[in-house]
Amino acid sequence: MIIIGEKINSTLKAVRPAIESYNTVVIQDLAKRQTDAGSDYIDVNAGMFHADEPERLVWLAKTVQGVTNKPLCLDSPSAKALEAALEVCYGATPMINSITNEKERYHEILPLVLKYKTKVVALCMDDTGMPETADERYAIAKNLISKLADAGVKLDDIYIDPLVRPVSTGPHYGVAAIDTIRRVKQEYPQVHIACGLSNVSFGLPQRKLINQVFLVAAIAAGMDGAIMDPLDKKLMAFVAAAEAVLGIDEYCVDYLEKYREGLFQDL
Amino acid sequence: MIIIGEKINSTLKAVRPAIESYNTVVIQDLAKRQTDAGSDYIDVNAGMFHADEPERLVWLAKTVQGVTNKPLCLDSPSAKALEAALEVCYGATPMINSITNEKERYHEILPLVLKYKTKVVALCMDDTGMPETADERYAIAKNLISKLADAGVKLDDIYIDPLVRPVSTGPHYGVAAIDTIRRVKQEYPQVHIACGLSNVSFGLPQRKLINQVFLVAAIAAGMDGAIMDPLDKKLMAFVAAAEAVLGIDEYCVDYLEKYREGLFQDL
Repeated sequence: MIIIGEKINSTLKAVRPAIESYNTVVIQDLAKRQTDAGSDYIDVNAGMFHADEPERLVWLAKTVQGVTNKPLCLDSPSAKALEAALEVCYGATPMINSITNEKERYHEILPLVLKYKTKVVALCMDDTGMPETADERYAIAKNLISKLADAGVKLDDIYIDPLVRPVSTGPHYGVAAIDTIRRVKQEYPQVHIACGLSNVSFGLPQRKLINQVFLVAAIAAGMDGAIMDPLDKKLMAFVAAAEAVLGIDEYCVDYLEKYREGLFQDL
Repeated sequence: MIIIGEKINSTLKAVRPAIESYNTVVIQDLAKRQTDAGSDYIDVNAGMFHADEPERLVWLAKTVQGVTNKPLCLDSPSAKALEAALEVCYGATPMINSITNEKERYHEILPLVLKYKTKVVALCMDDTGMPETADERYAIAKNLISKLADAGVKLDDIYIDPLVRPVSTGPHYGVAAIDTIRRVKQEYPQVHIACGLSNVSFGLPQRKLINQVFLVAAIAAGMDGAIMDPLDKKLMAFVAAAEAVLGIDEYCVDYLEKYREGLFQDL
């Protein structure tokens, strides 16, 4: 599993003040702990600061790269903020989170993907709004993959986000996302998934339980990447257990190692 | 989910002495608690008593029926023990657990299914031994379903057990069982699944975590019945959460009710 650590995000109440006050200690601590917990990418988001977003995102990119070699996942719909942050990225290839099939956004973001040769999260959304069904999601994914590939983006650099909506507002939203994942991985085995998990449980009690269930069902459908909280040991234990049960982790080698390291201690 | 409560089983160290000493209080307590926890069937197994099995199974059947209206799932490969127990069953239609595609066992058990018009668990196993792949399991399932249907058993009375083997001994065993479930439910939507869960985690630490993961992945593949421990509140919480995430429980009505009843209290 490709794990995109989601903790450095201005929409999180506990983190926003640290970005607001340029608190290097807090941000670097989150970056280090997410790295140690097994993140493959560190997501950075300064979207709540609107006009200040480019400046804040640049600060986040510099601050995080000071303590980890893991690549950044630059989380913004704004080409201006993304380009400013891309300019200060060095080392491992960053990821842009995200492009969509909305005309304006697509045409603003694509040049950045090409210019900086980044990886890119492609979100199943277009100008007609948020998709309802798996068919709609898959059609958008197919369209995005084909356009990105034609533009010169390698399939291996594309990460589809199936757009997860809360099951409390539509009973079919969980299955729609899971089926989209299955179809994308069946048709395009080289393309990856970068699925945001936590939306699925919005509005429900015991959100962590719902997120664990969705994670497992999505991995069983072929999900190979997720935007998630790597500091949630229980959720990480479910990743390890799912890979063991599904034979991705052959003979449970990784599962047993994580057990010995104490990952499952507090379960 | 059709839940077959597995606790009254002579292979369980904690339960065997109660069967040995004809301890009505212990057995009836297990029957009542499994009923209250949401079991649809109460499994009874006296297989460890060999020559005494028929007598013990009859005692279990009578004892359990004294405190619950839930039907029994008579768990034995022995036609003699099964018939003795079927003779004392009354009320809701019992289930025989199990028939297989082994010639001798098939021909001994089938007449009981027909005579007592029972439901029947059909285990994916034949005289060539335990199947390795999903293809082998599905071929046996198909064969059993077709033979049972030809003999007059309703599809709705057949419960396929995909034969779950430990992922610690073969990395493909989890996926083989899950794929078998998916194919059986796709081809025969009226046929049910009655999947034994706990074998999957044999030999691994944190077995409950592995069982939870397998349960969720199997429900996502269409599993509508399981032989499991209904007194494991956490496992039952995963059933409820999986049904919510997968839209089986529309708008999470049942999930929210279970939450209010306190099912998730100790998670």
